[in-house]
Amino acid sequence: MNNEDFLEAYLSDRQKIVDEALQRYLPDENNVPHDLHNAMHYSVFAGGKRIRPILCLAALEACGGDMAPAMPVACALELIHTYSLIHDDLPAMDNDDFRRGKPTSHKVFGEALAILAGDALLTEAFVLLSRAEKVRLAAEKRLAVRLAAEKRLAVIQEIASAAGAAGMVGGQALDIRTGKNSPDFEGLQCIHRLKTGALIAVAVKAGAILAGANDDKIQSLNVYGSHLGIAFQISDDILNVEGDSRLMGKQTGSDVASGKVTYPTLLGLENAKAKLVEHVESAVAAIEAFDSRALPLRVIARYIMERKS
Amino acid sequence: MNNEDFLEAYLSDRQKIVDEALQRYLPDENNVPHDLHNAMHYSVFAGGKRIRPILCLAALEACGGDMAPAMPVACALELIHTYSLIHDDLPAMDNDDFRRGKPTSHKVFGEALAILAGDALLTEAFVLLSRAEKVRLAAEKRLAVRLAAEKRLAVIQEIASAAGAAGMVGGQALDIRTGKNSPDFEGLQCIHRLKTGALIAVAVKAGAILAGANDDKIQSLNVYGSHLGIAFQISDDILNVEGDSRLMGKQTGSDVASGKVTYPTLLGLENAKAKLVEHVESAVAAIEAFDSRALPLRVIARYIMERKS
Repeated sequence: MNNEDFLEAYLSDRQKIVDEALQRYLPDENNVPHDLHNAMHYSVFAGGKRIRPILCLAALEACGGDMAPAMPVACALELIHTYSLIHDDLPAMDNDDFRRGKPTSHKVFGEALAILAGDALLTEAFVLLSRAEKVRLAAEKRLAVRLAAEKRLAVIQEIASAAGAAGMVGGQALDIRTGKNSPDFEGLQCIHRLKTGALIAVAVKAGAILAGANDDKIQSLNVYGSHLGIAFQISDDILNVEGDSRLMGKQTGSDVASGKVTYPTLLGLENAKAKLVEHVESAVAAIEAFDSRALPLRVIARYIMERKS
Repeated sequence: MNNEDFLEAYLSDRQKIVDEALQRYLPDENNVPHDLHNAMHYSVFAGGKRIRPILCLAALEACGGDMAPAMPVACALELIHTYSLIHDDLPAMDNDDFRRGKPTSHKVFGEALAILAGDALLTEAFVLLSRAEKVRLAAEKRLAVRLAAEKRLAVIQEIASAAGAAGMVGGQALDIRTGKNSPDFEGLQCIHRLKTGALIAVAVKAGAILAGANDDKIQSLNVYGSHLGIAFQISDDILNVEGDSRLMGKQTGSDVASGKVTYPTLLGLENAKAKLVEHVESAVAAIEAFDSRALPLRVIARYIMERKS
């Protein structure tokens, strides 16, 4: 199997596992007001590629960890990502009507419920993070090895910090403030490192911590994740310029039209692509010492470089 | 000292301790975009009475626990409460221009930043919840007894569940849906139990768990907290009818003007007051078996009944 076939099979397998877990983990519809429940499900199952959970699981795998007890953490990352999209799309923020080819949450459910669905998903992420994966372990008759509580607290600490004021939310605040005020390259990189990079980097790091990796490995994977996070944002910017809007499920060219400063508008398309390659190569280099179990991490890095949507 | 003087001294002492801790705990301004940092501080220090942290600490005290290591948990409850107020006040939600006599977050910072400040406070609550209180312990040269990690995870689980889709956010979703659709008494009670009651009840329960109380005590305190939460909401509704708007820092009478269904509008003012007394008495009765260390919990219950703002 060549890398491309492997990647396709791997991503589709993992997406399926993550989707199933998300279905199980979202709060029961009997315990949640009907329309809030619908709004939460609508956005969680709106066709996300589950990159953050998959990265978390791939990092875990690269360190020889067991996937089952890490599923709540992987899924919590997706809930945090989904909440951030719902709030970013709001009229007061980016005011986007479509995402992944579907009307955004506030277009379907109204602004109030979209705000609350985002709040609920963020909060439920921490419900998930603080619970051990008991049911699944029992069902599979595995040894019910619960992750050490200290390790789980460390993961919550890392994820909350990456998602909070000094991470993802901070990046969004910088982004809306900057708007058309033309940040320079440093400013742009800072926004991206926080807004997109922090959650992707912490997904990888959380996987390593959960697997019980040593500090060296955690550090290497952190470097991998940081480069990958920036690469992911650059590839997003590039797709906004030259992506196929049918594949993307949203209008492309919007950054140029709105005068938004991005890697391509600041550096030119070719230089932006060169930067993307640079970060992907740095990511792959950071995990050079890992054995073949890191293959998924390596091919995901290449995928970021070549993705079409 | 009579109960009234005791209560005043107690509340003012605890408010000061909580305020100082919140100052220390909010993320450093060097790590957070300037305007996001300002918006977070603006709402956290807008004159809140710190009822939830104080209840958490009082429950802890009633069970003989040590206050210092529980401060991050107490403060996290206040951050969650503050975020919920910011989002509730948004134009898409209750559209309130003033709270506690000051312009609401979105009036000062704009809608986008108000949404983000709320998101950031909710997330920072979990940063706090997942970290041990190391600095303070070291500074006071106490034995650095870290709360058992399992206990802290249980507290995160309880608080996240109470704040999430099946708790506070769910209550707000019911509330905006119901609006003028005249819920019956059961419906109203359900909204209140979730929207206000859940976070107050969990504040008390978290204090008991942190103190290492046995299941009986936790259960009794949970009953206390549940009644207190409903009592608190009824007193809010009553103050909206007959409170002094200068003391309240916001316009009163708005519920009647907007046709909102509340305890007084549904039951009449006198019956609402009777319900309030009932819940306060049930709360106090639930902790009858506790010794004198539960005095603060007892006087706080009376305070809910008699508060003027």
